[in-house]
Amino acid sequence: MPLTHAVLALVVERRGYGYELVRRFDDRVGPAWRLNPSAVYPALDQLERRGLIESGPRRGGTRRSPRIVYAATPAGAAALEGWLATPKAQPEPLRAELYLRLAFAQRRHQAALAAQLDAHASACNELLTRYPRATHAPAALGGGTLLDAAVVARLRAELAWLAQAREMLGHNAAA
Amino acid sequence: MPLTHAVLALVVERRGYGYELVRRFDDRVGPAWRLNPSAVYPALDQLERRGLIESGPRRGGTRRSPRIVYAATPAGAAALEGWLATPKAQPEPLRAELYLRLAFAQRRHQAALAAQLDAHASACNELLTRYPRATHAPAALGGGTLLDAAVVARLRAELAWLAQAREMLGHNAAA
Repeated sequence: MPLTHAVLALVVERRGYGYELVRRFDDRVGPAWRLNPSAVYPALDQLERRGLIESGPRRGGTRRSPRIVYAATPAGAAALEGWLATPKAQPEPLRAELYLRLAFAQRRHQAALAAQLDAHASACNELLTRYPRATHAPAALGGGTLLDAAVVARLRAELAWLAQAREMLGHNAAA
Repeated sequence: MPLTHAVLALVVERRGYGYELVRRFDDRVGPAWRLNPSAVYPALDQLERRGLIESGPRRGGTRRSPRIVYAATPAGAAALEGWLATPKAQPEPLRAELYLRLAFAQRRHQAALAAQLDAHASACNELLTRYPRATHAPAALGGGTLLDAAVVARLRAELAWLAQAREMLGHNAAA
């Protein structure tokens, strides 16, 4: 549950309410990781059930969407520290729908696959225009430049293999 | 649900039972995508509920784990064709726990982060030793070489940015 850890990290940094946490996530991690705002509420509920954060009194908002402010508990701060201090044992495998398409496509799907590769390349190029970001959280290790460098290198690499795959597939595939 | 599509693709190719489908998935897509064998049964159940595959009589196996053979329905073949012929509208964003760690790590987590980067690099290097694969499904577009080329390029790229991030983090971080 990496997202839950990220939400916990934001609340440990300073107390906040749902939508504000979404904005702070975007400031810190985006735009390469587009967060679905509705994903933050189940994460907050889960963290509260586990005693890692607690909800305070409502502060403003509307009746339909009250602002409930969350603060970290000492157990929450310890859990965050544990996550950041412990390297993950199992690195993530390469799971991408694109690989499955490459594995199962037949000759008659060549044009669709080429279009998929092109769409993926466009998305990477579009993201690249937003990096490096202008503002960084000063608290983070490397002030966020480490994350930006990683994302830029990853996007360029993605574009390189997409170009290679596109070449192998044939430039006329989409025609 | 890309995994469900992959299981459907295997059953459309020819009828099969759970464990055999897991082996065929590994032959076709692995080793970069390590499939959890238990994930194939919910996918088969879901495909059957949607009328895309149907289960035949039990053929052998043991009483505890009978072999139920699945075959694709015409609707299943059409659904697979639809998936492969339709480019996905929204390419996947860069979601990796490693990015969240880069975003939230503080100076005191430098050694743990360096260890994480190293573990990730080791996993990529280990995977690289298994490519290109010796056997390919002849039916696939490019006979599987397209997938292999993509995975190799992706792994090399991953290693390149990991080395860069490691450099930025400081070579003595893990000491």
